[in-house]
Amino acid sequence: MLAVALELFARNGVSGTSIQMIADELGVTKAAVYFQFNAKEELLRAVVAPALEEMRRVTEEAEARRRPADQLSAALTGVVDMIINNSRLNAVVWADPAVSRLTREDPILRDLVARLDRILAGPDPDVEALVTTVMVSGGLMAATTDPRLADLDKDVLRRQLLNTARRMLGLRAIRDQV
Amino acid sequence: MLAVALELFARNGVSGTSIQMIADELGVTKAAVYFQFNAKEELLRAVVAPALEEMRRVTEEAEARRRPADQLSAALTGVVDMIINNSRLNAVVWADPAVSRLTREDPILRDLVARLDRILAGPDPDVEALVTTVMVSGGLMAATTDPRLADLDKDVLRRQLLNTARRMLGLRAIRDQV
Repeated sequence: MLAVALELFARNGVSGTSIQMIADELGVTKAAVYFQFNAKEELLRAVVAPALEEMRRVTEEAEARRRPADQLSAALTGVVDMIINNSRLNAVVWADPAVSRLTREDPILRDLVARLDRILAGPDPDVEALVTTVMVSGGLMAATTDPRLADLDKDVLRRQLLNTARRMLGLRAIRDQV
Repeated sequence: MLAVALELFARNGVSGTSIQMIADELGVTKAAVYFQFNAKEELLRAVVAPALEEMRRVTEEAEARRRPADQLSAALTGVVDMIINNSRLNAVVWADPAVSRLTREDPILRDLVARLDRILAGPDPDVEALVTTVMVSGGLMAATTDPRLADLDKDVLRRQLLNTARRMLGLRAIRDQV
């Protein structure tokens, strides 16, 4: 059910997807969907949950490093892996006012985003660092949903995204890493 | 009516906005909206039209330069101006499956995007150029809708976006330009 919901969310947006549409796609009744999820928002949370868990893992592993440069490097690698492995979900997260609302309103998610930001932009970022961070994360998300990159081999894309992001943030490129 | 439609599209997504909602917000009947626009897609086209016109102007002005580096520089400046001046619209364009569909299916818009891509990524881009271009344009769009940058002065944001994008594309920063 979560996979079907994700697919419909990605195709039509969260607002454009009704519980009825999800039920139809699964060949069950609306009541059967409501039996598991009280509301569409609950379903959206369930769809996003695995990515959230991965984001928490990436953030905590990066925070465990001592040097800020190592934290940044670990966070970037984790974020790139995460978005490469969740391209359908990115289309939703990226695309949807409902998800921005969730990010703004959920305290746990807000805290996680703030911690990841602190690693990527530094503890007290100036305008340049802030803009660069936003462009890097926005650029990474865009890259996984852009049709121009859809035919690239995943490992090639992964390496290229990582090195472009590292260059944008003033880190050295990683060689021979697949 | 276009301003109201844009605001509702940005807030709820295109799929999540009904003609009824637009009519309610304007305090008119649904019939009055349908009198001007036969379908929501027609309304969406009208909302997007001014930005499309500006995109055409930016592309043509860039194409008129002789040197590829000047073309790139002109296109970047134009694109940054465009997104700074249309932040509500970016939220829609960025956010919406309905708009991606429009971009894919409208031959005029597809041609325009392809021409702009050719200027930004070069005529026969390798993987690195392609990924960088997608990250730059995605990053620029993300920057105008990101809440972390919402309080920045427009001119500061404009200059910073332009210089970050130039750096990503291997161009020199522009100094003292407001």
